[in-house]
Amino acid sequence: MASDGRRAVVLLSGGLDSATALAVARAERFACYALTIDYGQRHRVELDAARRVATALGASDHVILTVDLRRFGGSALTADVALPRDRDPKAMVDIPATYVPARNTVFLSLALAWAEAIDAQDIFIGVNALDYSGYPDCRPEYIHAFEQMANLATKAGVESRSRFTIHTPLIQLTKAEIVRRAFDLGVDPALTWSCYDPQLDGRVCGTCDACILRAKGFAEAGLTDPRS
Amino acid sequence: MASDGRRAVVLLSGGLDSATALAVARAERFACYALTIDYGQRHRVELDAARRVATALGASDHVILTVDLRRFGGSALTADVALPRDRDPKAMVDIPATYVPARNTVFLSLALAWAEAIDAQDIFIGVNALDYSGYPDCRPEYIHAFEQMANLATKAGVESRSRFTIHTPLIQLTKAEIVRRAFDLGVDPALTWSCYDPQLDGRVCGTCDACILRAKGFAEAGLTDPRS
Repeated sequence: MASDGRRAVVLLSGGLDSATALAVARAERFACYALTIDYGQRHRVELDAARRVATALGASDHVILTVDLRRFGGSALTADVALPRDRDPKAMVDIPATYVPARNTVFLSLALAWAEAIDAQDIFIGVNALDYSGYPDCRPEYIHAFEQMANLATKAGVESRSRFTIHTPLIQLTKAEIVRRAFDLGVDPALTWSCYDPQLDGRVCGTCDACILRAKGFAEAGLTDPRS
Repeated sequence: MASDGRRAVVLLSGGLDSATALAVARAERFACYALTIDYGQRHRVELDAARRVATALGASDHVILTVDLRRFGGSALTADVALPRDRDPKAMVDIPATYVPARNTVFLSLALAWAEAIDAQDIFIGVNALDYSGYPDCRPEYIHAFEQMANLATKAGVESRSRFTIHTPLIQLTKAEIVRRAFDLGVDPALTWSCYDPQLDGRVCGTCDACILRAKGFAEAGLTDPRS
């Protein structure tokens, strides 16, 4: 798919949501600069997934940047803390142990740095507020505040050369709607990785929050997950 | 100096301004968690200065985190681009080539991540808007927007356990006032490093913006810089 010359930085974890966000950006004819953060996550296999997805979806560039958030601690995703298991999605209303302090703020800041350096005005992030309201940094009011800050933070903003826009194409979708969107846009879910706790045999655990929500999405969309 | 138990994350570059910000935080009896970012800066000698300063001023912990912003480009501080030389401070009103895209946003985001993980509500940054207005991310309106965003971004903010405050004790001081403040608080300027372009013999260049402004500060304060 050809781009129309506009550049976008797309945060790409390697999961289904961020892959779908990248596919949306490509469908909107952006030249996509995919940014993956190696923050010391226990599910490092998602970095390989990010590489596969960036290639498959035609990213113009893909940077995997190391920012070792383990040094700060405070999360089950970066420390030896038990993951929540077999939870009912309806019960996922509190902020879970998998919350990584200020993660999306760190990620969006790095995306902003890259965007400004390459004269991109657009940043895509696959956050979702509807089906998983536990993370504060996935809510529209947070994204809006980040956007306001970004336009005061930067040379580009100050010189009014451009205004940064944080695109959140999935923020109001259900997991089922995201799965359908992914299929419609030609995202191969087999390339993606969502599970927080990869098993030794290379399979997903099936019981962490990410597995539960992904399974719910596929079930409600009436589709089969090649990863399950 | 004993702390009263409150923790603060202090961004510490190794320069005189951030050392003074750390000294202010200590004087306010915070237990200080000093954070230095190794972002690929050409003046890497400032990392050693940061170590010396953190020890001398009694930081409770000091993390040097690698975030290689060279990969994004766009700045004379991280790429092979000529530095501005011998500029009159009065002429430093435009955003210079040493601007690093979104640097303070990346730094403050990482400080926020650490602060939330250790239950700190306070972040100190030695930005200065008065004597060097060229950087957009040193202005009070930017700091205010970051603070607003931070309190929407975090579990701590959402649960109203705490409100994050970004302290900018130097933001309205002249360079001369910063130098005097540093002396009053017992900061040894010989431990700090400001120059963007360290010479092979280990001395400062004397002609980059950072050297010019530091010299102006010492001259106006009527003090001698052991680094000059």
